[in-house]
Amino acid sequence: LIRIAVDMMGGDHGLKTTIPACLNLLDKRADVFIEMVGLPDAILSKLPADWESKYKNRLNIRAATQIVEMDDAPSIAMRAKKDSSMRVMLNCLKQEAVDVCVSAGNTGALMAMSRFVLKSLPGIDRPAFLSPLPVVTDDVTYMLDLGANVDSSANHLLQFALMGSVWAKGVGQIANPKVCLLNIGAEEIKGNQQVKEAAARLQESSCINYDGYIEGDELYSGKANVIVCDGFVGNVALKTSEGVGRLIRQIMREEFTRNTWGKVSSLISYPVLKQLRHRLDPRGYNGASLVGLRRIVVKSHGGADAHSFGFALNEAILCCELNMIEKLSLGINQLMEEQQQLDVSE
Amino acid sequence: LIRIAVDMMGGDHGLKTTIPACLNLLDKRADVFIEMVGLPDAILSKLPADWESKYKNRLNIRAATQIVEMDDAPSIAMRAKKDSSMRVMLNCLKQEAVDVCVSAGNTGALMAMSRFVLKSLPGIDRPAFLSPLPVVTDDVTYMLDLGANVDSSANHLLQFALMGSVWAKGVGQIANPKVCLLNIGAEEIKGNQQVKEAAARLQESSCINYDGYIEGDELYSGKANVIVCDGFVGNVALKTSEGVGRLIRQIMREEFTRNTWGKVSSLISYPVLKQLRHRLDPRGYNGASLVGLRRIVVKSHGGADAHSFGFALNEAILCCELNMIEKLSLGINQLMEEQQQLDVSE
Repeated sequence: LIRIAVDMMGGDHGLKTTIPACLNLLDKRADVFIEMVGLPDAILSKLPADWESKYKNRLNIRAATQIVEMDDAPSIAMRAKKDSSMRVMLNCLKQEAVDVCVSAGNTGALMAMSRFVLKSLPGIDRPAFLSPLPVVTDDVTYMLDLGANVDSSANHLLQFALMGSVWAKGVGQIANPKVCLLNIGAEEIKGNQQVKEAAARLQESSCINYDGYIEGDELYSGKANVIVCDGFVGNVALKTSEGVGRLIRQIMREEFTRNTWGKVSSLISYPVLKQLRHRLDPRGYNGASLVGLRRIVVKSHGGADAHSFGFALNEAILCCELNMIEKLSLGINQLMEEQQQLDVSE
Repeated sequence: LIRIAVDMMGGDHGLKTTIPACLNLLDKRADVFIEMVGLPDAILSKLPADWESKYKNRLNIRAATQIVEMDDAPSIAMRAKKDSSMRVMLNCLKQEAVDVCVSAGNTGALMAMSRFVLKSLPGIDRPAFLSPLPVVTDDVTYMLDLGANVDSSANHLLQFALMGSVWAKGVGQIANPKVCLLNIGAEEIKGNQQVKEAAARLQESSCINYDGYIEGDELYSGKANVIVCDGFVGNVALKTSEGVGRLIRQIMREEFTRNTWGKVSSLISYPVLKQLRHRLDPRGYNGASLVGLRRIVVKSHGGADAHSFGFALNEAILCCELNMIEKLSLGINQLMEEQQQLDVSE
């Protein structure tokens, strides 16, 4: 059985999202066990009457008395919400009652609690948020860090590159993933000190297939299998993409309603536009993995609906099926050994 | 007369772009003088035979013997191309033979040469690239720095904020522009040290209407009139936006050609889609101003066509008509005085 703990109370819609997504998963996959963490009465009221017989030994309710709100400061959540669904979920994971966990809750609190409860993998200084990106080709691209850190050093970027590479091999099924560093175009000032130093160290490493710099306009080109950057930059890039999507949807709406011709066009194009909207919906790419801790925590978008929360659950299953924690540990050990030898030889 | 020097040889298409754009401007505006800088024979071969009589005293050709290539390293361009069209254009500007200049050439070289030739305005440590952004509302938004710097300190960000504010007042005609700092969402690590410190200093300043943090997904929302960030982050955000645009165009193409219904829809929607393509074309927002030097340099996108290069020329005219250099100096002096008083009172 693949055992998943789910923070049932997290996200903008809480149980309305998490319950149907979890039940759907249990219906589809007989090899999945879900630990539903949250207020028991609230959860029970949303479950079908026959849940105990229907999901025999595959569903358990783990009681938590508190909820981390979306606007709680992480420090407050850490100190005052030790019996929250988020924290109890992480405790389950730490005690190995489950293999992975998923939350749509407050990102800052989830990061802070995850770090505190789960601790880093040996050899990793800081965990990072990693997510697949949609690209124009059939290639697979993962990007990290998407916002777990600011001010990443060259060494942090190197560790992110290694984790991204292991991920692209394991989850993405790419034999020799091309790893690129996100940088800016103007030659004179090509990158800040950290990026330049990380590039030099990536070039030396034989654990990573380093393929040079990549610029913002190539994020979605499929050129790289792994894109590495500081969390500040990665978060801005990701959120900016959402903003551009919204801008383009708005302009499309305006043009398709500007005059009669536009309105007729939009009626006739309805099936195409609907499919387009579906493909451009960022919720289709839901589920960022926090990698670099002793266990994997999958973060769903706070605004996810049940369908989209399902993607995050699938991401979590995949991590377990593919033994990603083991693969990450192995990869990091290789990198550490190599780096020690490089240090000695210098 | 508004006097503009143009680097005729710069950009991916050189004279094919710059000549028609300049002639078009001269035809439209009788109050504009253009100093065309470049290889005289090449320029002459593209001008109409009657140019001297037609543009009497409003067009001059200034000879340069070299061209800065798009892939020249800025350091090479600085040392070995002292008689390039780019450098001669900047010399014209420095000697006050013209009021402003425009180039579509190599960005790194243009920045390096501009700094060296023109020097900073007193009170400004580093110049920044500033550009208007398209937004979903009728509001006006300017963003800086888009890539002239990496590793901006809190003080640099404060100076960018001031320049952006002056720009929004002057060029954007906004009485009391709202200035926001670009930041990331996760509360725990809300921003790096520079951003946090800049926020504190902006809050203290009465020269700037500081309106708090803004995230990447709000860049195009019209929420802020001025968005301030480090050049690395700004450049990634801008280029990522281009990449998203390309991704969406690709997905649209796929959906409108997937099957017969899609193809019929695209035929019927042709006028709408054409207008859409036009509005989504980033070349429509061409012309970033390098602000913070003693003169303003307008940078056109390297791939601009004549129409799009015209936007950059218009931007340059606007800077002169509105006395932006004077307004910037005045604003900076006020900020400096205020900061000195704040330092004393602390």
